[in-house]
Amino acid sequence: VNLQATLDDIAGEIVPHLGVGKVADYIPALAQVDPHKFGIAVTTVEGESLLAGAADERFSIQSISKVFTLTMAAEFVGQDLWQRVGREPSGSAFNSIVQLEYEHGIPRNPFINAGAVVITDIIASHCPAGGVKGAQGTKTAIVDFLRQRADDAAIDFDLEVARSEKAWGYRNAALANLMKAFGNIVNDVDDVLDIYFHQCAIEMTCRQLSRAMLYFANDGTDPLTGQLVVSAERARRINSIMLTCGHYDASGDFAVRVGLPGKSGVGGGIVAIVPQRLAVAVWSPALNEQGNSHAGTLALEKFAARTGYSIF
Amino acid sequence: VNLQATLDDIAGEIVPHLGVGKVADYIPALAQVDPHKFGIAVTTVEGESLLAGAADERFSIQSISKVFTLTMAAEFVGQDLWQRVGREPSGSAFNSIVQLEYEHGIPRNPFINAGAVVITDIIASHCPAGGVKGAQGTKTAIVDFLRQRADDAAIDFDLEVARSEKAWGYRNAALANLMKAFGNIVNDVDDVLDIYFHQCAIEMTCRQLSRAMLYFANDGTDPLTGQLVVSAERARRINSIMLTCGHYDASGDFAVRVGLPGKSGVGGGIVAIVPQRLAVAVWSPALNEQGNSHAGTLALEKFAARTGYSIF
Amino acid sequence: VNLQATLDDIAGEIVPHLGVGKVADYIPALAQVDPHKFGIAVTTVEGESLLAGAADERFSIQSISKVFTLTMAAEFVGQDLWQRVGREPSGSAFNSIVQLEYEHGIPRNPFINAGAVVITDIIASHCPAGGVKGAQGTKTAIVDFLRQRADDAAIDFDLEVARSEKAWGYRNAALANLMKAFGNIVNDVDDVLDIYFHQCAIEMTCRQLSRAMLYFANDGTDPLTGQLVVSAERARRINSIMLTCGHYDASGDFAVRVGLPGKSGVGGGIVAIVPQRLAVAVWSPALNEQGNSHAGTLALEKFAARTGYSIF
Amino acid sequence: VNLQATLDDIAGEIVPHLGVGKVADYIPALAQVDPHKFGIAVTTVEGESLLAGAADERFSIQSISKVFTLTMAAEFVGQDLWQRVGREPSGSAFNSIVQLEYEHGIPRNPFINAGAVVITDIIASHCPAGGVKGAQGTKTAIVDFLRQRADDAAIDFDLEVARSEKAWGYRNAALANLMKAFGNIVNDVDDVLDIYFHQCAIEMTCRQLSRAMLYFANDGTDPLTGQLVVSAERARRINSIMLTCGHYDASGDFAVRVGLPGKSGVGGGIVAIVPQRLAVAVWSPALNEQGNSHAGTLALEKFAARTGYSIF
Repeated sequence: VNLQATLDDIAGEIVPHLGVGKVADYIPALAQVDPHKFGIAVTTVEGESLLAGAADERFSIQSISKVFTLTMAAEFVGQDLWQRVGREPSGSAFNSIVQLEYEHGIPRNPFINAGAVVITDIIASHCPAGGVKGAQGTKTAIVDFLRQRADDAAIDFDLEVARSEKAWGYRNAALANLMKAFGNIVNDVDDVLDIYFHQCAIEMTCRQLSRAMLYFANDGTDPLTGQLVVSAERARRINSIMLTCGHYDASGDFAVRVGLPGKSGVGGGIVAIVPQRLAVAVWSPALNEQGNSHAGTLALEKFAARTGYSIF
Repeated sequence: VNLQATLDDIAGEIVPHLGVGKVADYIPALAQVDPHKFGIAVTTVEGESLLAGAADERFSIQSISKVFTLTMAAEFVGQDLWQRVGREPSGSAFNSIVQLEYEHGIPRNPFINAGAVVITDIIASHCPAGGVKGAQGTKTAIVDFLRQRADDAAIDFDLEVARSEKAWGYRNAALANLMKAFGNIVNDVDDVLDIYFHQCAIEMTCRQLSRAMLYFANDGTDPLTGQLVVSAERARRINSIMLTCGHYDASGDFAVRVGLPGKSGVGGGIVAIVPQRLAVAVWSPALNEQGNSHAGTLALEKFAARTGYSIF
Repeated sequence: VNLQATLDDIAGEIVPHLGVGKVADYIPALAQVDPHKFGIAVTTVEGESLLAGAADERFSIQSISKVFTLTMAAEFVGQDLWQRVGREPSGSAFNSIVQLEYEHGIPRNPFINAGAVVITDIIASHCPAGGVKGAQGTKTAIVDFLRQRADDAAIDFDLEVARSEKAWGYRNAALANLMKAFGNIVNDVDDVLDIYFHQCAIEMTCRQLSRAMLYFANDGTDPLTGQLVVSAERARRINSIMLTCGHYDASGDFAVRVGLPGKSGVGGGIVAIVPQRLAVAVWSPALNEQGNSHAGTLALEKFAARTGYSIF
Repeated sequence: VNLQATLDDIAGEIVPHLGVGKVADYIPALAQVDPHKFGIAVTTVEGESLLAGAADERFSIQSISKVFTLTMAAEFVGQDLWQRVGREPSGSAFNSIVQLEYEHGIPRNPFINAGAVVITDIIASHCPAGGVKGAQGTKTAIVDFLRQRADDAAIDFDLEVARSEKAWGYRNAALANLMKAFGNIVNDVDDVLDIYFHQCAIEMTCRQLSRAMLYFANDGTDPLTGQLVVSAERARRINSIMLTCGHYDASGDFAVRVGLPGKSGVGGGIVAIVPQRLAVAVWSPALNEQGNSHAGTLALEKFAARTGYSIF
């Protein structure tokens, strides 16, 4: 497979599909992004980096942050994590509060908003070790984890986005308060939300994201540094959760069309991995009805079809 | 009908039923109340006051406050009120968040918690006229309304209960934030909740409550002062909402057993009215599974059977 | 109150509102009815009969049959009835299957379709005594009950409507089968549905219906024959269920606007009673969004306002 | 990997886990099965067959039939299939009627009962070509498909199970009637259910099932006969649906623990495939709370761990 040619072809073919759908507009900072942007990047387990389009442009990673915070939380509490969050697909919209009510404050999985807030709460209880106390310390720990994964110290929060998320985050506040009522949030609700809004507001490029995801393609070990990030078993488990739950209520559709473990964000980014081979990140801000990048999903479908890299 | 003898008989017959059920224990201040307490009071439209048991003992009126705040809000905004809250029974638990999600932030009726919070939000937008700004002014306006209705300036908040409600009010915070996300809360969420928790924490006696409810039994006019509180039509409408929605998910049961418009609170109080005749208030803290006073409901069932005062 | 003049006025004022809404069109036999029809009839407990408009025209009583079958079933099994059906408003559309699933096959009340099917199943288990076996005997027993109540032997099924109901009754078949799965239907599902579709297909006039409802206005005893149909207590209880549940998911609205116990049907008929005074029946086929006669509801609102006969 | 040794080890290690859980008891024919039975079989794409335990004992394949009927329906109607059934995980119990109501008669995926009934309806509309008309012809077509896939003409229905399914199939009748009400069942409801109950009542052995599944492990082509059963793309798509939806509301759990596309049935069977390598079938009748074989799931977890054959 000639990966560079594949990316170039995709970047060309995707042009007519750019701008189809709708940029996330629940906060002004996201609504201003140009819907026609497109970038794609691959990092292989051998360390090769291949780019096309705006692969070095920063965007808001949003829910993509959830695969990294899940990694952190799993390292902190291990299997106990599954006492507080499930690992089943939700069968309803990503921010629905209904299932949370019926299931007594236990979110269906770590990738719907409620589940991700519980994960953030777990991290807040465990870090930093000997560092700055409270929300600030946890925020720093999360962005540091991303910097290490991407091997790039320049990664940071977009504070304007973080502020906006907070100002318009009533639904997430509803989710967090409901879980607190059920006893499934340990720390202060406002602190947890503050951390959560910041993790979603981290800015990264496709190149950085594909680099950061590489440990999921290599049994939990960063193939370029040799560092064990998580155990091979845990990496496989998180991969399987990406496949069944990574795209909200379109996870089944993504599995059918792309056939790779992945995670999307409302900033228009999607990451995916091909086990033993590579990680790929794509970005295009206009979203389909399920809240996933329209052109990004299509690009990954083309990528899987062209390379034959489905896991099925 | 000899009302005093009826109340005395009921106070005697109810003794074996006191303590059956469970005192509200979601906040310490309520959990400490003696479950065996019982009081009942009637005020007739002629101004007669009849008491039995602990009818002069103060208790937390909790959701009974909702009939009074509904009166206030209806006077402020009239029919526009029904754009923001329905008037249909909810068919689910009093604090359920599910229907709110399915119905886009419009609560089913003004007597479930979510609906009452919207009503409080409406009052907060309209009062006080020329008074103290913010939550404090609205709280004062509500307690003043109660003092006027009961003709008793001594009525006040139990600040310990108000503080407790706030400290444990995560579910109400979830409801309020979800409605804010749907655009159905205008004022600051924390302010609205602060007012709401205070209105629920008002302390009154059975005697005061039966006096305060009298305008609902007299076409909206206080029969003892001649003051028009609400129009006759509006009083009838609120009475009908009490009948269909006044007892959470046991409203149908209360209508079948008692047959009078009424409203209960988790403090163990229940108020009811007999059109053109009287208002009655009963109190006994132990609650049944639906969150209504067990002995209080039974006492009102006996009251209706003995007097023949069903509206059906 | 001059009742005849009131009915005449209403019949005049209602003209501009006729045809607003939509005739029930789920079966051809109902879809053909002229949406501009209007009739109203009052029968007083003294036996006076007052009519206006097409009060002697027959129409499909549909769900109005449910108040009569509830009466029959209550006489057969008494309080045991409430083991198999609730008496709380449903808070969802009249034919919703969702609540049935969550509440394990126990319908919310006897007036939603599922509840009415359970009531029919109870009757099928108890009648006829010594009569024709099976569905036929039960159908005869129901129509005979109506003939006695209305004192009119000419009342009968519209067999064309009954056939149509059956041919298009998939949703009711779904409800009945789901309840059978939960063990809450005793008899053969097809038999019970056959009876149910026939009871809904009974044809009556406004005059006949207002006569037949009279026992609900007179403590359970037919005031014109002196026959005790049900006990006074039971009549009051059914009246209260009419008020809280008689108009599907618009029961609260009907209580607010009309303030009388009543029951509607998708044939465009509505019956209501004024305790100790009279029964009223109105008919106009065009339905509002909640499935109740638009002009019929408005006519009863006018009737209650004009006469002052609200129970509140 | 020494597959025979692996199967033997698993058959030994599984002994203490046999009988944990509960045999399906909704029909007598299934309730009588010995809960301690265990069998496992692998068929490789090279045609090797490896067995352990009761791998040649016949059992009721139940919902495992759904992967084969999905194959048939996909060949009949292609992509149009997705107009009538979704491909998203359901997030609720396998036979829940709730989501069907909210989503207007379109089942979430082809593996929940409602979805499988739609698939059966599609087949009933398309087969047999030139064969026996009606339900009988469709039943024959389905069992013939299984005989060809397993290369074994002895496969047949257990008519006693089929009769039982029908006699107790009220919930499935509810689902089918509800979908018919929404227009998503084309053929006669009783016919479709008759076919569905028969397809679930087919008896097969682990050896036969692992052979029959082989085309899913080989890009849609039977590797032993060379026959193209479905296109490679379609095989991959069905594999992905097995992974996200194959185990009811425990699909996520199965993906995390086993990491292979699979499908379970309440008869205690589970099939799974390892792309490009093999198909495996396991059987043990006692079910866990989610309705999947307890020991069967555990055996496959051991199989995946021992062989390293996760797709993640």
